[in-house]
Parts: sequence; structure tokens; C-alpha cells
Amino acid sequence: MQNAEQILRARYQLLGEELQGRGLSIDTVKSRLKAQEIETPSWGYGNSGTRFGVFKQPGAARDVHERLADAAQVHRLTGVCRKVALHIPWDKVSDYDALKEETAELGVEIGAINPNVFQEACYELGSFGHRDPAVRQRAQEHLYECIEIMEQTGSMLLSLWFADGSNYPGQVNITRRKTWFEDHLKKTHDALPDGARMLVEYKLFEPGFYHTDVADWGMALHFAQSAGPRAEVLVDLGHHAQGVNIEHIVAFLIAVGKLGGFHFNNRKYADDDLTTGSVNLYEVFLIYHEILNAEAAGSRPNIAYMIDQSHIMKPKVEAMIQSVLNIQTAYARALLVDRRALTGAQAQDDTVGCEEILRAAYDTDVRPLLAQVRLELGASLDPLADYRASGYFDKIATERQGVLEGAASWG
Amino acid sequence: MQNAEQILRARYQLLGEELQGRGLSIDTVKSRLKAQEIETPSWGYGNSGTRFGVFKQPGAARDVHERLADAAQVHRLTGVCRKVALHIPWDKVSDYDALKEETAELGVEIGAINPNVFQEACYELGSFGHRDPAVRQRAQEHLYECIEIMEQTGSMLLSLWFADGSNYPGQVNITRRKTWFEDHLKKTHDALPDGARMLVEYKLFEPGFYHTDVADWGMALHFAQSAGPRAEVLVDLGHHAQGVNIEHIVAFLIAVGKLGGFHFNNRKYADDDLTTGSVNLYEVFLIYHEILNAEAAGSRPNIAYMIDQSHIMKPKVEAMIQSVLNIQTAYARALLVDRRALTGAQAQDDTVGCEEILRAAYDTDVRPLLAQVRLELGASLDPLADYRASGYFDKIATERQGVLEGAASWG
Amino acid sequence: MQNAEQILRARYQLLGEELQGRGLSIDTVKSRLKAQEIETPSWGYGNSGTRFGVFKQPGAARDVHERLADAAQVHRLTGVCRKVALHIPWDKVSDYDALKEETAELGVEIGAINPNVFQEACYELGSFGHRDPAVRQRAQEHLYECIEIMEQTGSMLLSLWFADGSNYPGQVNITRRKTWFEDHLKKTHDALPDGARMLVEYKLFEPGFYHTDVADWGMALHFAQSAGPRAEVLVDLGHHAQGVNIEHIVAFLIAVGKLGGFHFNNRKYADDDLTTGSVNLYEVFLIYHEILNAEAAGSRPNIAYMIDQSHIMKPKVEAMIQSVLNIQTAYARALLVDRRALTGAQAQDDTVGCEEILRAAYDTDVRPLLAQVRLELGASLDPLADYRASGYFDKIATERQGVLEGAASWG
Amino acid sequence: MQNAEQILRARYQLLGEELQGRGLSIDTVKSRLKAQEIETPSWGYGNSGTRFGVFKQPGAARDVHERLADAAQVHRLTGVCRKVALHIPWDKVSDYDALKEETAELGVEIGAINPNVFQEACYELGSFGHRDPAVRQRAQEHLYECIEIMEQTGSMLLSLWFADGSNYPGQVNITRRKTWFEDHLKKTHDALPDGARMLVEYKLFEPGFYHTDVADWGMALHFAQSAGPRAEVLVDLGHHAQGVNIEHIVAFLIAVGKLGGFHFNNRKYADDDLTTGSVNLYEVFLIYHEILNAEAAGSRPNIAYMIDQSHIMKPKVEAMIQSVLNIQTAYARALLVDRRALTGAQAQDDTVGCEEILRAAYDTDVRPLLAQVRLELGASLDPLADYRASGYFDKIATERQGVLEGAASWG
Repeated sequence: MQNAEQILRARYQLLGEELQGRGLSIDTVKSRLKAQEIETPSWGYGNSGTRFGVFKQPGAARDVHERLADAAQVHRLTGVCRKVALHIPWDKVSDYDALKEETAELGVEIGAINPNVFQEACYELGSFGHRDPAVRQRAQEHLYECIEIMEQTGSMLLSLWFADGSNYPGQVNITRRKTWFEDHLKKTHDALPDGARMLVEYKLFEPGFYHTDVADWGMALHFAQSAGPRAEVLVDLGHHAQGVNIEHIVAFLIAVGKLGGFHFNNRKYADDDLTTGSVNLYEVFLIYHEILNAEAAGSRPNIAYMIDQSHIMKPKVEAMIQSVLNIQTAYARALLVDRRALTGAQAQDDTVGCEEILRAAYDTDVRPLLAQVRLELGASLDPLADYRASGYFDKIATERQGVLEGAASWG
Repeated sequence: MQNAEQILRARYQLLGEELQGRGLSIDTVKSRLKAQEIETPSWGYGNSGTRFGVFKQPGAARDVHERLADAAQVHRLTGVCRKVALHIPWDKVSDYDALKEETAELGVEIGAINPNVFQEACYELGSFGHRDPAVRQRAQEHLYECIEIMEQTGSMLLSLWFADGSNYPGQVNITRRKTWFEDHLKKTHDALPDGARMLVEYKLFEPGFYHTDVADWGMALHFAQSAGPRAEVLVDLGHHAQGVNIEHIVAFLIAVGKLGGFHFNNRKYADDDLTTGSVNLYEVFLIYHEILNAEAAGSRPNIAYMIDQSHIMKPKVEAMIQSVLNIQTAYARALLVDRRALTGAQAQDDTVGCEEILRAAYDTDVRPLLAQVRLELGASLDPLADYRASGYFDKIATERQGVLEGAASWG
Repeated sequence: MQNAEQILRARYQLLGEELQGRGLSIDTVKSRLKAQEIETPSWGYGNSGTRFGVFKQPGAARDVHERLADAAQVHRLTGVCRKVALHIPWDKVSDYDALKEETAELGVEIGAINPNVFQEACYELGSFGHRDPAVRQRAQEHLYECIEIMEQTGSMLLSLWFADGSNYPGQVNITRRKTWFEDHLKKTHDALPDGARMLVEYKLFEPGFYHTDVADWGMALHFAQSAGPRAEVLVDLGHHAQGVNIEHIVAFLIAVGKLGGFHFNNRKYADDDLTTGSVNLYEVFLIYHEILNAEAAGSRPNIAYMIDQSHIMKPKVEAMIQSVLNIQTAYARALLVDRRALTGAQAQDDTVGCEEILRAAYDTDVRPLLAQVRLELGASLDPLADYRASGYFDKIATERQGVLEGAASWG
Repeated sequence: MQNAEQILRARYQLLGEELQGRGLSIDTVKSRLKAQEIETPSWGYGNSGTRFGVFKQPGAARDVHERLADAAQVHRLTGVCRKVALHIPWDKVSDYDALKEETAELGVEIGAINPNVFQEACYELGSFGHRDPAVRQRAQEHLYECIEIMEQTGSMLLSLWFADGSNYPGQVNITRRKTWFEDHLKKTHDALPDGARMLVEYKLFEPGFYHTDVADWGMALHFAQSAGPRAEVLVDLGHHAQGVNIEHIVAFLIAVGKLGGFHFNNRKYADDDLTTGSVNLYEVFLIYHEILNAEAAGSRPNIAYMIDQSHIMKPKVEAMIQSVLNIQTAYARALLVDRRALTGAQAQDDTVGCEEILRAAYDTDVRPLLAQVRLELGASLDPLADYRASGYFDKIATERQGVLEGAASWG
């Protein structure tokens, strides 16, 4: 009888043979998986909560340095998470050169810059949508500051989420707010560093419970189009009404040249911010399938794949590793779709055949393949087990006591 | 003690005084209400059903002539429903001049033309989105035929709903279908009669249960924009995911110059096609409020207000009258909003005040006002009671027995 | 021309005549409205927030004394809000006799006692559903403490909401948790003061995003039945899935003898905790209609009508007054339904007629009636205007600065 | 290089070794899978449609004989579908002995009897909930007739779905209808053959769009409890509001001893009646996981696993085979959960660990295992491919032309 690792290898071997039989090269698949980049968010390593309270977690990162250190662990173990998104002002520092050096030493680099125009008291009734020009200007200044940080850190991505909305009919003039948004998004767009992009995120509701100024992809697309060519749409998987077909939106946005990136997470009810794929991984697979469809048709979208989750009952680093593995799993399976056979089945209106082709790929156990990919990337064969064995969590749970002076965060 | 009519008059008197006290002229309000146009659909007078079956109703209209006669009743009693939407081929005739004469005699006129590219077997897998160019061409020919009918009938509106979609992941190539839709919608647009418009309707799901080619307002807007200046979006109140803020979409579409019309109805669950306002009339009020907001800001949208319902448990003509009264009620109340006070309250972030201003209008009993409007239009003081007293229903229930030769319909 | 008050009186007069014409006595309606009791929650007068943060409001009550003072204002102005629900430990005091004296002086009295077994760190993974018996016991002790407070304050109602749930499949053993709930709810039931009742609240989701131990009315009913005769179900209007027919559940619970009370609020999306009736007041009307249906059929349910809202963008006292007025409006309109006519229309399957009878009541402007009721109760003719004119808000906004020592609260 | 069958065998070998390493016996798993029974519905082999129409499919079964023949194909190929549910009157025959012989020859047997009290015109406004006692009695007579058919066919299961509901507030007296339901369900229960059971199905909405008399599991449970010990609840996977946790309901119903069976299907939006597992197979896995949890805790629920789907875009027999394979896949994976490890992880609040244990089972490729199971059952290694190769479809598509005299069906 073989041991677990031998079984893994035997399975990898068998998978290669099976793919060959279907005209697919496992090496091509592997090279795609090695090139995959998944960006983790600094704020995902610190405390967060629900409206009923924040439960402090042992080992939760308290400042940007601890957040980067945790992100580096995730990258070390998975091999595909070099980039870390920052949140300003939570990750603000006085010396960004030093921060870049720090990231280099940790083996990571700075990804998207995420402004915060929702937490200060002045933003209670809006930021770019606020009826008071002084508040709008303050939000604008904060965005200019973030663009300045992009220049200092080399970040090429400004990722924009607005909590702007209202709670009651009549409370605000929706159409005037739309104009203010157009105006300030344009200003922001025009101030971007050379070659940089900005992403406009949408969300159906919360914290606004009557209207949200950027409520859906249609509004985000409008704002991105009116801002300019370097503005694109960001799709957060948890920001839709129940039932909405997200992969359709993804395909549509690619087709109009405006899909800029994702915030990966999952939800069963509202914007639950659960581990990506924990409710329905098949949906993530179908999203990747549409992206690969677009590539097969000649599109070359520049998509930032970012995680945005809020783990309350799971240790942060473990939850992040789990999410990365799920995203890789979905992507790997999408790469296994027999595209030629699919096109053939579609041409014959063979609905059952089409679905079986997707399912043949999705039902494949890609764990041996992903283990091999990580092995070749110099990462961990079994990231969660290795993380648990590493003693890292015990170390941070012990060390990270009390509040750090000057540190800002969500919870 | 006064009788019902005296009370009505006394109330109308009091309402006038109250409005005067708030700086509003009841005559201005009345003139707006008299100018209101609500278009009823020919197919709303015939049988329809759920997927579990069609229950035949006594008196249900069987052909275009009976449908027009019923529509004329609704107009006679309400005074605001001169236009009747036709559905092709159900309302197809050999002689449209005769049909126009018939409508003229009935005191109604032909409104929007609604093509049908979903009922024939060839459309099972799509019309403009079908992978087979022959099916797409057939749908295109049908639309040309409908445009020809527009020319013959003087209709200035082509109202487009597509059942196109798929039921399973992988079944179709979503992006290619998008291209076909763009192509055929453009062709349709370019063939429109001078001065005519076409409306693109969207729907989240049903009959497609995986994807729908025109699934939401964002997609409909894209298709309308790519088709040309005379293509606009049609908002059906029952075609959204749960929770979606429809009045926000309405305001947004007006702001981008692309709101073309409504299909009024209501729903509690999915696309239930219930009587407008029967679940939540406040929503209809808020929609009219956004339209009046846009007007107050200088917009002059050209909006077609059309009913599209499917009554299974209500007699058709009664249900239509009820719907018209509800729509009038919502509009009348929206006209009573003290807009100056609202702007003032908004400028002070007085959320409670803003809401109270809307509610003061919405809670007003406008029945005396609407009765007066109908009186001045030469219509009925109490349309439902008058309809019931008229004997019309007994007459059609008796006369309309059996199937008419050559007649087409839904159920 | 008459002034506003004259118009109000004239309308009241006309309403009386109209009701008389329909065989209804306005005095009977008034006596029902005067007997109406709406309980406001102490926590509704203090700060609260969303998961994105708590925005401090000027004048927000900081301890139980300020909360009671605010509640007394609401009662003084509306005349129907004598009872105030307390939240333990937020409203815990050392001397409950003194607290009762305080309430007596304020003209209010203590209503339901609401335990809190969700905020302490030990409850992160559950209270009665926690796998650790020590945590379950701690929750039980807290409930015993609350029952003790019921005895000291004379409260006859224990109102139970549990945040218990899980976020991921497999995380907990759902069925064992059910057993623990049954066990502890029974113990709680058996410890209730003589004649007192306990209410079991349900909620679809949040803060648990995979499962919630008391997720719907069916589960709450089961727990109430297994706990004993004095356990009943509490219906919070915001705790259902989209589309759910709440009035049906209300009718069903009354029919099985287990409807104990309401938490009134409204929502458009999830558990938004908005002002009751602000999204759809018709739903509240239909709920009251079912209650009156049950009474007409001989039921005598003992129902506690309580408000539970979380106002972020509205001043607390104003929002509470508004809510009370909305609830009164819904009830008043339900009282105007011509029940005999309705029964007659139902017996003829006259769906249109049935709906028109409800709408005739619902569309009635009951503001003159409610003003008269308040007048006769010695309360305010126009509560919101009087509140604003009273200077109370300016006073509390000025006085309530800083944090009170020893005070506990949500935000 | 190996061929597909060699790869399958090698994989099966490896799976056995892997399970052994985790203390699981592949033979035990296989014996459970061989004992699995999945009942297919006769009506699933005939035409069906949406409310927009029925598209006739080539080869669709036209009467009970053709339906049984198709069901026999599914059983021949999958080995686990011996039972076929009948629908009365669609499957009514004059000689049930002959029908039993026919099934015996086909290698299948008769499963649940499904009455139809929704399609005749008299049921438009309800069956057991109808206000007219004559209609209720007619429905009762039909149920007695179905019970008679149970006795003649040896069926031990009466499966009840009621379309009863209303479309508008006020239309009916909900509470009186509840009483009628209780009365007639009790009568039905008391007339059941010895040892037979009846299942009460619930559904949120459709065809009723305001209220449905048996709207959710809580109502179905109440009706089952009031009817008697042999009445249980039937869970149709597509009959819930969005977001509802079905596996929680399943666990709850088992715990109260009232889970009687399933109608398997899937949905993305409403009651879409799609192939089981086509939207989210993980949910089916979690349902089986709760059933196995209950068994591990000592419950021995008697659950009927039945398919109820409506395929419009897929050939009926293929769709049924696909569904069976999906259900087997979910069950097989649930059997692979390392239950001891799970209990251990739960005892340590190791949420990540718990989820990984479920996912380790769910991510396993069980196709080799299921192929082996089918091989040992004498069924097909690859049912879909074998079916396509068999020529059966071409045969029925050719033979089944025209309408059969006296045959009844949905579409």
C-alpha cells in the first residue's frame, strides 16, 4: 500500500494521461496555474466584525507591518499571492520607501490602493455623493493622497468602493448625486499615475438601505465610461441581488472592455464576506470559464484577482490560504474544459453534452495538479498543514497583545 | 347627513383648500392628471395562465376585435386609456385601414406594436440570440413585418421583449449571442418609421433559468445605445431581482436619456404579473416621484406608460380598470409632493422631514380628486361600479362562446 | 378659506359620516385606537450602527435614565407608548424600585425584558447552542438574572433573541444544538414569574451566515411548543427571506395559539431595521387585518406590539414618533375594513371586490381620526411638529456630551 | 499509456487505498451506494413547459406505457431507479394488474402515487382549501381514488402537492382554509392502506402569487402532525425562498421524526425545476451529510428520494440519467466524510478544519467508484454514453408521432 504522497503522485500521473487522451497538455495547464496571481488584502489579516460587535481574534494583525508579514506567509505557502492590497489610512506610513523595502524582504509587493471614504463621521451621509461640496472635496483630497501613495509605492491600481447611499425615500436627490459622482470620478481618473487604472466597485445595498449610489454593474459601468479609458469595473462576488448570474455580467463587461478586477468572497444571504467558494465553488468555476471563453475569442482583459473577505469565526491566515486554494481549484478546473468538444456540442444544441463537458472538468480532482504546481513554484505541497505545523500562529497569538500606538484598523 | 357623492364633493373642496394652503393649485394638478395617458395591452383582455395551465375565463376576448372593444370600455370609463398595444401575430389582420377605422369608431387608437419571437417552435432556443442564422433571420423578418404594421397603423412605438436565454451552464456562448443581438437590434433600429422609437425590455429570468440575454437594465441600456438614438429602455416593474430599487434605475435611465417606457404590473415573488400597485403602491408613487424630479430639473423624457399584466383570478376588464385607477392614484399623489419644502429639508439633511413630505402627499386620499378629473374628462365617477352596472360583462360572457376561426392568442 | 385645523376637523366630520354610511361607528374605531399599546425599546434611543461603524448622534441617550426620559417624550406626544422594553445588561441598575419610581414619575412603565447573550466574547460561537456546557450555563444564568429583574420590575414578558448560528458547513452539529436549545428554553420557561410569558424570536441570518439556530417561524414554534404553554413566538418584520408572506405566518401562529408579539420595523433588503412602514405600510395593514380577522372569528390573542429599529440617519426620538404614527395608521385603516362586505365578496369569489374593500379602507386618510384620538388621549395633535417645537432635542443634544461612567450600550 | 477504462480502474484502486489510509472501507461505501434508491417520475418523461408555452420534444412519452418504458431505460443504465412515481389521472389505467405485470417485465415497480387536484377548472381557486364544500369533496374523492390505486398497485406512498393559494390580499379567508386542509388531510390519512404513508409538500409560491396554503416546511409540518403519525413532510429542493438553508430544515425534520421524502431538482431563481445539482451540487451533498449525521446519531428515517424536474431544453431520458448520476455523486461524496475527524474538529471549534474535512470528501472524484458500483449492479459503466449508443432515442423519436387516444399529460 502506498502512502499519501505516493498516491498524490500516482494521481498526478493519471491526470496527465487522461488529459493527453483528450488532447490537453498538463504542462500548458500548469504554466497557466503558475502564472496565476491572487492578491490578498491587508485588512483581511486584522479584526473585523458584524454590526453586533467585533470579536477580537488571537493573532489578528494590528498594523501594516503585521499585515504584510501575514500576507508573506500566505505567499510563501501558496506561491501565487505576491501582491498585497493596502487600505488607506489603515496602512498609511510616513516612509513608503521603507515600506517597499520591507515588502521586498518579505517577498511580497504592494498591490491595489484602497481609499476609505466611509469611516469618518463626515462621511455618514456620503462622500462623492454628499450634498455638501466641502465633504466631496475632502473625499477628493483623500483620493489625491491615495494617488500620491500609488506613485510612492508603484501601485498601478486604485480600487474604489463607496458606501454612499440613503436610507429613506426622498432623503436625497439621487440624480444630483449621480452628477457629483461623475465629476469627482473624472477628476480622480485624470490624476492617476501613468499607466495606472482605477476600478469602480458596485454594491446592491448596505450600509445604505434605500438606495446606493453605485448599486449595480450597470451604474459602475456608466461611471467608468464617463470617467475615462483607465476606469474599469470591479466585481465583488457578494454585492449582487439573489439569483443574479455573475458570470454573465463578467462576460458582458469583458466584451465591452471594462472588466478591471474582482473582489473574491462568497455569500449565502447578503454581503456575507465568507471564504471564496465556501457556498458554491461552481460559480467561481463558471466565472473563470467565461474569462477563458473571452480569451479563446481573442480578448486580453487585464483583470486583477483580489480577495476581499471578513472572517469572524476563522483564523485570518488559515482562511486566506483556504480561499487561495479554492480560487486555484476553480481556475484549474476551468482550464481543463475541453473547449473544442464544447464548441462542437453547442453547435448541435446538445445541452446535456455541453453541461457534461463542463462537469467532466469540474468534477476532476485537481489537488494532485495543484500540489505539483506549488512544488514547482517552491511553495508548499500542503499549505494548510504546513502552516499549522509551522508554529507561526502560536507565535503571533503570543506576540500580538494589546493595541499598537498609532495603528488604525477596522475593528 | 350627506350622501356619498356629497361627501366626495366636500372632500374635493377641502383638498383644494389644503393644497392652496401649501401653495399648490388643484387646477394645475388636475390638468396634469387629465393629460396622463395609460396604454392597455390587447393581450390583457384574453386568457392567460401559469405553467400549470390556462383557466378559461367567461368573457375573455378571443380576437383583436373583442380585445379592442374591451379596451374601449376601459377608456370610456377611465378617460385616460385611449391607446391600445397590439401583439403580432395575435392581433394581425389583413386590412389595417379597416382596423384603424374600427379603433376610431371605438374611440381608441393603436399604441405600441409588440412582436412575438418566442412562441413558435423555432424560437425554443432563442430568436436574435439563436446560433442558427436562419432563425435569427426569421426573427428579423418578423420585426420588419411589425415595422410594416407600424407604418400601416401609424404606431410610433416598437416594444421588444426577448425570451432568449439558456437553462444550463455551457449550453450557449453568451458573448457571441450578445454580438448577434447588437447586430439585429441595429438593423431593426435603422428600419424604424420616421420619428418612431423602439424599446428594449429586460428581464432577470424566465423562461430562461440559467441566463437571459437581456437580463437587466444595464444590458438593455447597452443594447439601446449600440442600436442607435431611437432605441430606449423599457422598464417592466416585475422583471427585477428581489430588493432592487426600481425608482433609482428609472432616475438613472432618464439621466442618461434612455428611459422609453414602462410595463406596469406588480409582483410579490417573481414575475407574477399582478395588478399594478396591488403589492406595494408606494413603489409606483416613488417611481412617479423620480420622473417628476427629473422634470423639475429640466428633463423632458418621452415615456410610454403601458400596462402589462396577466390576470388569472380576476375578470380582465375589471382588473384593467383597477390597474388604471391605481396608476392614477400613484401619479396624483406624486403630483401633491411639496417640492419646495422637500428641497429645503434635503438641504438640511432632515431625513425625517423629507420622508414626512413624501408621506403627506402619499397619505392624501385622492379619490375625490380623481373622480373630479374623470368627471371633467367625461368619464365615469366610479368606473368599477359603473362597469359592473353596465351589463357589459354579462353580455360578453354570454356572447363569447367557443373558438373563433383564425384567431390567435396566448392561452 | 379654512385653516389647517379647521380642515382637519371638517375631515374628521366627513369621515364619521362616511363610516356611518357604511354601518361603522367612528366611536368604536376610536375606542380601539385609544386602547392600542405600542412598546418602544430603550435601546432605540441610543447609538447604533452598521458593521462599517457607529456614527454618534447628537442627543443619543447614553444610559437607562436618558432612554426612559426619551421614551416618556414619545408617550407624552403619542399617548399610546406607555411601555418601554429594557435590555439587560445595558439597562441594568442596582435599584429596580427606584427605577420603577422613576418610570412612574415619567408616566411610563417597564415592558419586556430583553436579555443579551450575544455581545460578550464567550458567545462568539453561541449561547444556548454553544457546544461548551459552561457557556450554555452562563447564558442560562443570565436568563435567570433577567427573570429576577422581571420580578423586581413587574415585567410580564421575556423577549428572547439568539444570535446563535454558524458560518460554514460542518462547523457545528446542528441537531445537537437543537437539543440544547430545547433544554435551556424549557428551563427558562419553567422559571418564569407567575403569569409571565416568554417570546422566542426567529431570524433567517446574521450574524450567522451559514445557519441560524432559530431560523424561521417553524423552528421558533417548535421551540415554543417544546418549552411550554407560556412560550410563544415573536415575529420581527425584518427577519424573513424576501417574498415571504408575513401576514400568513401571523394568521397561522394565531390559529395555533402561539403568536406572542411583534418587533416592528421595515426592510427593503435584509434586516435593515428601518422605520416601520417606510418601505411598505400596506404590509403592516395586512398584518393587522389578519389579527382582526382572527378576532372576528373569536380568537383573543395576547399580542405584544413592540418596536425594534436601528436608526442611523434619523434622530432617535423623531424616528420613534414616526414609527408609532405609521403603526397607528395601519391599525386605524385595518379597523375601517368593511368586514361584512368582505365576507360577502369572498363568498362570491369576487377577487376584485375583496381587494377594493381592503383598498377602500387603506386609501382612507386617517390623519384626522388619529389626531382626534390623540386629542382625546391628552396627547399631541401633531406629535412631530410639537416635538420639534418643544426644544427637547436641543436640550439633550447640548446636555448629553461625553460618556457616562458605568453606562453600557450597543454602539 | 493507458486507455480510459484502465485509468478508471487505476483510479478506483487508488481511491480504495486512500480511504483505507483514512480508516474507511471502500466496500462499505459501495454497499451503501448499491442500496441507494432514486425514484423517477413518470411525468418527467413527457412534455412540459413554461407559462410561455410547451415545446414538444421528439421522443417525449405520451402515455403511461411509454413513460414506464423510458423509466426502465434509466434503471437499466443506472441500476438504482427501480421505482417509478405515477401521476393520477395522467397515468390512470383500467387494469392495474396488467400495469403491474408490465412494470415487472420492464424490471421496474410502481412507487409513489401523485394525485392531481390542480388542473381541472373546478380547482382554479383551490382544492382542499376551496370555499365550496363541493369542490373540497371532489378533491377528497380524487384522493380516495388514488388510495384505491395504491391498494391495487401496492404503492406505499401518497405524495401530495396542492396548488391552493390566492393572488390578492383579502381574496380568501386564510385561516378557514387552514381548517379545511386539516380536516381533509386527516380524512386522507385515515384512509391510507395499512403501512402506507402520505407526504405533504410545501411551496413558497406559484401558481398562487399572494399566499399559498402550504407555503413552507413549518406549515407542512403542522398539517402532517395534525393529520396523524403516517403523515410526513416532503421537501422539494426548489420550493424555498432564496437563501434558505435546506439542509437545516432537513436535519430539523428528521429530528422531529417527520421527514418523509424529497423531490430532487435545482433552481437558480424560483421553482426552475432544473437538473438536480446543476446549479449547486454542494447543497445536495450537505443535505446527504445531514441525513448521515442523523443516522450516525441513531435516527433511522424512512426517506423517499424522488426526482421531480421539468426539462424543456434537454431530452427527457438523458436529463433523468444525468440527475441520477448527480444525486449518486452527492451521496457518494457524503459517505466519504471522515466523520470521526469531523467530530474531533468540531470539539475544538476548528471551523477551518471542519470545512476542510467536508471538502476533502466533496472534492474527491467519485466517478471511478460509481462506475464500479454500476458494474457490480449489472448496470452501465457510462450510462449517458451507452444510452446515446443504444439507439433508443432514435427509436422513440421515430415511433412516437401524433397524439395517443385517451392519453392524458401535462403539456
